[in-house]
Amino acid sequence: MLGKCLENVRATTPLVHNITNYVTVNDVANVLLACGGSPIMSDEPDDVSDITSICGGLNINIGTLNKSSIEGMRVAGLRAQELKHPILLDPVGAGASALRTNTAVNLMKNIKFTVIRGNISEIKTLALGSGTTKGVDADVADAVTEETLDGAVQFVKDFAKKSGSIIAITGAIDLVSDGEKCYVIRNGRPEMGKITGTGCQLSGMMTAYLVANPDNLCEAAAAAVCVMGLAGEIGWSRMQEGDGNSTYRNRIIDAIYNMTPEILEKGAKYEIK
Amino acid sequence: MLGKCLENVRATTPLVHNITNYVTVNDVANVLLACGGSPIMSDEPDDVSDITSICGGLNINIGTLNKSSIEGMRVAGLRAQELKHPILLDPVGAGASALRTNTAVNLMKNIKFTVIRGNISEIKTLALGSGTTKGVDADVADAVTEETLDGAVQFVKDFAKKSGSIIAITGAIDLVSDGEKCYVIRNGRPEMGKITGTGCQLSGMMTAYLVANPDNLCEAAAAAVCVMGLAGEIGWSRMQEGDGNSTYRNRIIDAIYNMTPEILEKGAKYEIK
Amino acid sequence: MLGKCLENVRATTPLVHNITNYVTVNDVANVLLACGGSPIMSDEPDDVSDITSICGGLNINIGTLNKSSIEGMRVAGLRAQELKHPILLDPVGAGASALRTNTAVNLMKNIKFTVIRGNISEIKTLALGSGTTKGVDADVADAVTEETLDGAVQFVKDFAKKSGSIIAITGAIDLVSDGEKCYVIRNGRPEMGKITGTGCQLSGMMTAYLVANPDNLCEAAAAAVCVMGLAGEIGWSRMQEGDGNSTYRNRIIDAIYNMTPEILEKGAKYEIK
Repeated sequence: MLGKCLENVRATTPLVHNITNYVTVNDVANVLLACGGSPIMSDEPDDVSDITSICGGLNINIGTLNKSSIEGMRVAGLRAQELKHPILLDPVGAGASALRTNTAVNLMKNIKFTVIRGNISEIKTLALGSGTTKGVDADVADAVTEETLDGAVQFVKDFAKKSGSIIAITGAIDLVSDGEKCYVIRNGRPEMGKITGTGCQLSGMMTAYLVANPDNLCEAAAAAVCVMGLAGEIGWSRMQEGDGNSTYRNRIIDAIYNMTPEILEKGAKYEIK
Repeated sequence: MLGKCLENVRATTPLVHNITNYVTVNDVANVLLACGGSPIMSDEPDDVSDITSICGGLNINIGTLNKSSIEGMRVAGLRAQELKHPILLDPVGAGASALRTNTAVNLMKNIKFTVIRGNISEIKTLALGSGTTKGVDADVADAVTEETLDGAVQFVKDFAKKSGSIIAITGAIDLVSDGEKCYVIRNGRPEMGKITGTGCQLSGMMTAYLVANPDNLCEAAAAAVCVMGLAGEIGWSRMQEGDGNSTYRNRIIDAIYNMTPEILEKGAKYEIK
Repeated sequence: MLGKCLENVRATTPLVHNITNYVTVNDVANVLLACGGSPIMSDEPDDVSDITSICGGLNINIGTLNKSSIEGMRVAGLRAQELKHPILLDPVGAGASALRTNTAVNLMKNIKFTVIRGNISEIKTLALGSGTTKGVDADVADAVTEETLDGAVQFVKDFAKKSGSIIAITGAIDLVSDGEKCYVIRNGRPEMGKITGTGCQLSGMMTAYLVANPDNLCEAAAAAVCVMGLAGEIGWSRMQEGDGNSTYRNRIIDAIYNMTPEILEKGAKYEIK
């Protein structure tokens, strides 16, 4: 089933509009190409409405936001919503600054996101911080471990129900829930945290998966998480002596490029709770 | 002859001012260094006039444009024109949004570009869309194939004459014309389309070629196209099992770094029509 | 001793706020991760105060500055100063434009930088250009060679004393001085100049070293210079036929990722004058 989600991406080459940070934008573009999609980047308020109109989905990432791009996010989001495009929010750094928290919260008020994808700290900020103007303290952000798993699954289900969005929390264990079921995914490697932007890359790729699988959004989101984690495992297996995080970055994207439905079905490690 | 164009770049290290998108800017800088040039990036209107004055040429790329950078393009373009520097326009996404189309058209009204380089869809937009405020439909954009070649050659010659710029259309078959002759170039590989920004990279490198070869601008532009395509072939030949588009990106830039006049003369596949 | 500086970075994972150019920002982030630190990027004036408050140090790089990011630099710098965080200035292109020179000079008036790191031309501009509104001519910028070394050492000591900042000048020979002693460092390879942003990468990494070694700032700065140069040597030793500057970039970052105190102590080539 996950393999079918991948096939649908390769078969339809979804065009994804990205308003994303300038740190990892090149990797996001190359990952979108690697997975079978096609990227367009635009954040200028006067440009985004036209651009999002020719795309199939919208990926909003609030890293390195600025006043102009925040307005671009608003305009693009409303237009994409009008067009019933899947829209993903990656609340980078929500909780780390008031501007980021407020931007994410305000976007959520006006735009119904198909998926919100972040780390546990960012998602907890959005779940707890609505209506306040302060970032929540980072201490709230407990990692999802085997010990805390049941509570985390309940949290993600509850927030998915409350927000009306599919919630994807990525970390050592990844959780993807639509409020009813929750995918618990154990692909990936800890060394992926030593590369900037694997989360941003996943958000871009996940948007392509959503566009290509409109009738199976939750599974499509989970499939993208599995692809990313599995690519991290395959990329790591190709590392040689002397290689480090820069080469690892390349090998992960390469593994996404070479991913097939068969490799994905065989390598995906998940259960549904 | 193409080899001589390359030699001139390596001998003079042309300094190129780039106003370019934040998606592929790092690759543009590294390609400029690889080919023997030197990059400077600046888009702030208060900065660009000084920067372009110390450079030999200007590369304007309208991907991820914003209100401030559009003004930067105007200011830099007028200053570079005053200094008689070669100026290249890469109309990324012209036709995809009104802002992009209009920005390209307005720049063309005020600045005489030495070269305009884009894909067939972007160039057709500029050829047909002048004076309108709407992006042309993407359906107009037919790929250049052996079957449509004669018509495309005529189109590019006509637009070069009308615009007074050398026109470079890149795709499966590349065309470079000054209105009289037309280079028809068959280097490159289809997998280059799976890497973000090979077009942007070419625009940066081509500007260096223009600066270093002021008396042979059309040939210099064609030489840069051949270098890019040939580097794509050489890079591909070095790919190993498990490699994908991220490694391919590195190998292409590496091949530009190691390109010599001899390799270029031997590998360039072109005819003049 | 240099090895201890490295150990302290790995032991404490310093969080570094970077206001840096969009050309090399991805490499800066990956180098910070490779060396054992953690990067955050933010340049929006309304965001930077919160962000810098949760970090341990601030890296200000004026490449691709714009009106908004200049204000961001000012706000973040004042806040970081208030918090007694180490602050580094990388005056990219000072001397190349009035805006860049003035921005660096104005920042120096209001913010006491822990370290100013640049090439000889940029540092000479700051030493000579204070109070003027013109970039100094690039002819002033003589490379530091064995022949000019004594004069250069005196210059860097004098400017360190006058400015109250540690001054780091990088080039074929690197100099790091706090006004009393001067580290003269001979690591590195000339081919590093064929990669965009090795200087920016060093500035990011150096900031992490400053944060982790508050009692040995000058040595920490010198250690970061040695790590970068030595990584350039190790990365070069792993180059294979056909590799070029793009692969070299990856191998340098990989070498930083794999650097140990032992490798550093053994490979660092420096004397104190």
